[in-house]
Amino acid sequence: MAGKFSFQLDATDGAARAGVIETPRGQIRTPAFMPVGTAATVKAMMPESVAQTGADILLGNTYHLMLRPGAERIDRLGGLHRFMNWDRPILTDSGGFQVMSLAGLRKLTEQGVTFKSHIDGSSHELTPERSMEIQRLLGSDIVMCFDECPALPADRDRIAASMRLSMRWAQRSRDAFGDRPGHALFGIQQGGLERELREESAEALTRIGFDGYAVGGLAVGEGQEAMFGCLDHAPAMLPVDRPRYLMGVGKPDDIVGAVERGIDMMDCVLPSRSGRTGQVFTRHGVLNIKNARHQDDPRPLDEACACPACRNYSRAYLHHVFRSQEIISSMLLTWHNLHYYQDIMAGMRDAIAAGSFAQWRAAFDAGRAQGDIEPL
Amino acid sequence: MAGKFSFQLDATDGAARAGVIETPRGQIRTPAFMPVGTAATVKAMMPESVAQTGADILLGNTYHLMLRPGAERIDRLGGLHRFMNWDRPILTDSGGFQVMSLAGLRKLTEQGVTFKSHIDGSSHELTPERSMEIQRLLGSDIVMCFDECPALPADRDRIAASMRLSMRWAQRSRDAFGDRPGHALFGIQQGGLERELREESAEALTRIGFDGYAVGGLAVGEGQEAMFGCLDHAPAMLPVDRPRYLMGVGKPDDIVGAVERGIDMMDCVLPSRSGRTGQVFTRHGVLNIKNARHQDDPRPLDEACACPACRNYSRAYLHHVFRSQEIISSMLLTWHNLHYYQDIMAGMRDAIAAGSFAQWRAAFDAGRAQGDIEPL
Repeated sequence: MAGKFSFQLDATDGAARAGVIETPRGQIRTPAFMPVGTAATVKAMMPESVAQTGADILLGNTYHLMLRPGAERIDRLGGLHRFMNWDRPILTDSGGFQVMSLAGLRKLTEQGVTFKSHIDGSSHELTPERSMEIQRLLGSDIVMCFDECPALPADRDRIAASMRLSMRWAQRSRDAFGDRPGHALFGIQQGGLERELREESAEALTRIGFDGYAVGGLAVGEGQEAMFGCLDHAPAMLPVDRPRYLMGVGKPDDIVGAVERGIDMMDCVLPSRSGRTGQVFTRHGVLNIKNARHQDDPRPLDEACACPACRNYSRAYLHHVFRSQEIISSMLLTWHNLHYYQDIMAGMRDAIAAGSFAQWRAAFDAGRAQGDIEPL
Repeated sequence: MAGKFSFQLDATDGAARAGVIETPRGQIRTPAFMPVGTAATVKAMMPESVAQTGADILLGNTYHLMLRPGAERIDRLGGLHRFMNWDRPILTDSGGFQVMSLAGLRKLTEQGVTFKSHIDGSSHELTPERSMEIQRLLGSDIVMCFDECPALPADRDRIAASMRLSMRWAQRSRDAFGDRPGHALFGIQQGGLERELREESAEALTRIGFDGYAVGGLAVGEGQEAMFGCLDHAPAMLPVDRPRYLMGVGKPDDIVGAVERGIDMMDCVLPSRSGRTGQVFTRHGVLNIKNARHQDDPRPLDEACACPACRNYSRAYLHHVFRSQEIISSMLLTWHNLHYYQDIMAGMRDAIAAGSFAQWRAAFDAGRAQGDIEPL
């Protein structure tokens, strides 16, 4: 794969940034939202449909793929892009977060983590070196450092010790990654909600040097206010000329608030998972398609949305297929949610380029204020 | 809806026939295979994808749709075509067969059938008149007579009595249907495996007069040999200038054998249902994608197939997503199976037109003989 990895910052508006990441597999327009393709598929979507929503890049999960079908198998089959029929960029996480949150009996040492598969109970080990190897076997375009991430709240000493372990692992990840033109390695800032620890982490990562930097350890139970409090200072600690990635975020207003605070990339299962549970995100808030009030409603989810669910189907139909547990319900609602998320990203990119982010933000808030709120 | 319903027989080759049914919603090339869209969706498929497989017409199930979301509701929402975003022809069954086979406590009288919904236990009645009304509310292009169909084996008296009831209901269906230009009403021949009863039924239906005729009461447990034995004489009893429809059939070799015996239309859930259970039909037989032998196989399901599953994915990928219970497994395998079924139909239509059905049939058999047989 010829070409190189680079980031160009094209515009700023307040702390918000718009730019382009160039990769040998194509451009990633930032701010970018990355749909999650956990097990080599964005659930209920054909990859060409994911591309049609406007996604430039997907996220794949090292933890899931190493267990099934296995990284070496994917490598033999030509890599993850070919395996799942997605030729645009892929970012893979390191497996660290999911080992901590999903795996069974696990043991954490300086060396790494041993754990048992949630699928068949088999034993596995993840270390910075093995995580780099797996992400290379998958053919990932953007590789994440192997790190440890404590759930919040946690005491300061626990957060500090964890962050420093992650920084030592960041160095080992950098060493193991080596020199791979066209592929990027991102460091992950830790430190919980402690500003000094975030500073220490940012300095450690910058000293090592990465192609991009993630703000890690957020969206783990601290709440939006605390997350935004951290994002008011954490992104600015990171090099201005590298993309900044907020992992695992979030709801539409989380995403807007993160971009407003200087974040360039995000990922979350929420739009796809919600599509399967009947939760629909629109300009006007949240719909729960399961509710009986939709059963005779001939209107689309959102009359201004250009996705197939909104162009071709009534709320009454979507209610019917959801209640009937038909697969097309997951297909259409996921498509809509991913399309809406990408509409938000495109709107923010345009607004930042035009210097009108505040106006865009006001319109975003006004749309939500006038509309539907139907929690699940 | 302007225009009229007509059938043109273009070619015959032995008993096999090729032609075109014209409807205000478009042409149906025969022999035609109709995918089943039970609850206003062909499971795991977008309707535009169903059209891409080559399907000219779908089947909808009166029984399911009357219970959920309800025929009156679909009518208020603009009819079934608009509701499910399918603008080509739709054939609806009468509900009779599914009431007999699926519904709970039921009571059969001369008037009709009362039964309890399998969804919520509510009480419902189906009569020839109500079935015609429901199919009109749905906006069906080809409406089926309301009939009764005994499971086989059954004794001759039971079959004869049931057939004669169905013939009285056929007259009531005809009377209730009325005159609806552009919409067709099909009669359903009954009589089990009894040739004289089939004759009696065909004569009764022909006397009433229908736009097409179904061979009913087969594929209900009698086996392929007995079914073909019946099809050796039953279709020829029906008017030559009307389409002949074999209901609920079947496996690829059932379909080929039925066309060989003079059938013009068929429907079956098998290709879509099998797509969800991992059973794959190809020119070379049957694959069970669940089997471990596929886990490292880089080949497509069928190298000659032009469907997206075969163009873009390996058997290894399809095995992985099936084992991981990912929705895309149902989406891709259903698409392949429906595409393969339509390939068979197109091949038979071309062969009949060219007078080479026997050669086509020999090649069909040879492909299956050389290949995979992996029963579930």
